Amino acid sequence: MTAARGGFKKGGRGAPAGPLPLRLVVLAGGVGAARFLAGLVAVAPDSQLTVIGNTGDDFTVHGLHISPDLDTVSYSLAGLGDWERGWGLKGETWGAAEQFRRLGDDTWFQLGDRDLATHVWRTEQLRRGRPLSEVTRRLAERLQLGFALLPMTDQSVATRVLTADGRDLHIQEYLVREACQPEIERIEYRGIERAQPGPGVGEAIREADLVVIAPSNPVISIGPILAVPGLRAALMAAAQVIAVSPIVGGEAVKGPAVPMLRSVGVAPSAAGVAAIYADLISDLVMDQQDAELADAVAATGVRPHLCDTLMVDQAARERLAAAVLAAASIPPVRSAQSG
Amino acid sequence: MTAARGGFKKGGRGAPAGPLPLRLVVLAGGVGAARFLAGLVAVAPDSQLTVIGNTGDDFTVHGLHISPDLDTVSYSLAGLGDWERGWGLKGETWGAAEQFRRLGDDTWFQLGDRDLATHVWRTEQLRRGRPLSEVTRRLAERLQLGFALLPMTDQSVATRVLTADGRDLHIQEYLVREACQPEIERIEYRGIERAQPGPGVGEAIREADLVVIAPSNPVISIGPILAVPGLRAALMAAAQVIAVSPIVGGEAVKGPAVPMLRSVGVAPSAAGVAAIYADLISDLVMDQQDAELADAVAATGVRPHLCDTLMVDQAARERLAAAVLAAASIPPVRSAQSG
Repeated sequence: MTAARGGFKKGGRGAPAGPLPLRLVVLAGGVGAARFLAGLVAVAPDSQLTVIGNTGDDFTVHGLHISPDLDTVSYSLAGLGDWERGWGLKGETWGAAEQFRRLGDDTWFQLGDRDLATHVWRTEQLRRGRPLSEVTRRLAERLQLGFALLPMTDQSVATRVLTADGRDLHIQEYLVREACQPEIERIEYRGIERAQPGPGVGEAIREADLVVIAPSNPVISIGPILAVPGLRAALMAAAQVIAVSPIVGGEAVKGPAVPMLRSVGVAPSAAGVAAIYADLISDLVMDQQDAELADAVAATGVRPHLCDTLMVDQAARERLAAAVLAAASIPPVRSAQSG
Repeated sequence: MTAARGGFKKGGRGAPAGPLPLRLVVLAGGVGAARFLAGLVAVAPDSQLTVIGNTGDDFTVHGLHISPDLDTVSYSLAGLGDWERGWGLKGETWGAAEQFRRLGDDTWFQLGDRDLATHVWRTEQLRRGRPLSEVTRRLAERLQLGFALLPMTDQSVATRVLTADGRDLHIQEYLVREACQPEIERIEYRGIERAQPGPGVGEAIREADLVVIAPSNPVISIGPILAVPGLRAALMAAAQVIAVSPIVGGEAVKGPAVPMLRSVGVAPSAAGVAAIYADLISDLVMDQQDAELADAVAATGVRPHLCDTLMVDQAARERLAAAVLAAASIPPVRSAQSG
């Protein structure tokens, strides 16, 4: 990417003459973001990447602190993720769950044995008084991620689903235990008003050449990140912000994005995604199946870019990442090398 | 056992006319005690059994509270123990350890996946403010042990090994990490002066028809129990106290009892075991291989009982348990039924 980089660097006043690494920031939820990132690190290997992860679905199980989205990103990008299942570690075993059941503990939140070790490790680090950002930095280092993984905040935020039948569920209870069945009345990011952007989060956005909003659920994955006080303003001042639509043909590639979007009064479509991010993004990369929505997207003031967004394999992930860089007028290193 | 029971009940003043369940207390370390108990519950199924477990080797790993001796007893007696390996759960897997290594944590204290779940569970219960005795009661209930398992104390006591080369090791570091290699200068039960007998411990001893000191290491397994302030006095006032020698032919059946006994200036033999317990016990069940030591045992004021003490299989465990009851003039239920 080195040869192509200089030309696309923005705000280069006072920058040294030589090419600088492209500074990329990705706002990330879980599986969709992990897939996109696997493509991005392949097509932009020399970029300086910072991933800002959602912690709104962090959860306590068996007294352990679990950060599902951070873990999905780090397991996947460390080459340890189970792409088939979409979460957790490959080659995972389930002996601990058997013992938890024997001891009478709930096991609806399935924790594999290797995964459990991560949570034990993280919980011990947190109990020693280290903030989540520091613990995540150590974890990323030990898993040799090769990029910065920053929790959106070090404060505790809980995404809650208030259901039509009057229940107040943690997002993980809604997603996993209740299998997304309850009708949603409202989504809350509880604690968000006391949250501050995690260390480095504001700086990374400020210094980024490009911020990409990953194809993650806009309400429960990206929504909590955008709701951290100060982050929306930082993004509005960013060099360039692009989103990838997680909605294809009116359906979510994975997970409950459709009812989630409906719950916040937004159409479950690429046009709805454009509308929800309209004040932040200049461009939306959306699936070619949704070509007929391009005008509706453009009507929100967002430039539509059509391509195949379904990340069925690594080649597809890289194609999508390249399309996002192209939409930002940044050619991917592979094309640059072969062209 | 019901038919045979009444005749051997001691201190029966004021007892109801019908037969009472035999009240047994066993002071227990880990593997040797677990094997003995597996025999005892088989030959005295209707007895009211209380096991007082050593917590001097309790340990913190990965921020988790581990009670190795309590777990060895409960796993084994719940039918979950790995008799071959001698510790841990059968069918165990080691995925979590793989992940701990990946995260850079020490894994010399091997924790299987199912075992890890127990420690996560216990640690969560303790963090909620429950004392170890209460947590152990719940665990015993959930594993359907069918007897009371009482930690010797709810306070923290750490058996430490001070080595000849000046190191101060936790007993688990000595046993596992250092594989019993360092020369022992001194053993300390750190914190013992602040320990109180756990709830029910004193009562169980006071009300017992028979207290058995299991064939466990006299220094690091039974020693901490006897050192809990008040316990030695309770045992001296008990109806009957019998020990089983863990030393056969001058060697420990398992573990480092020989260097341990030497470190406290006691001969590593059945006679040494008799001497160390002489003020507490009336009888010592010892291996027939050590017949020539019977006079030396008798010289300490302790009645020797010779039998095969090697618990190579369940039949052998039951034979030893029956021999202990016989030494206490309590016939085992199986003999009673068949005779």
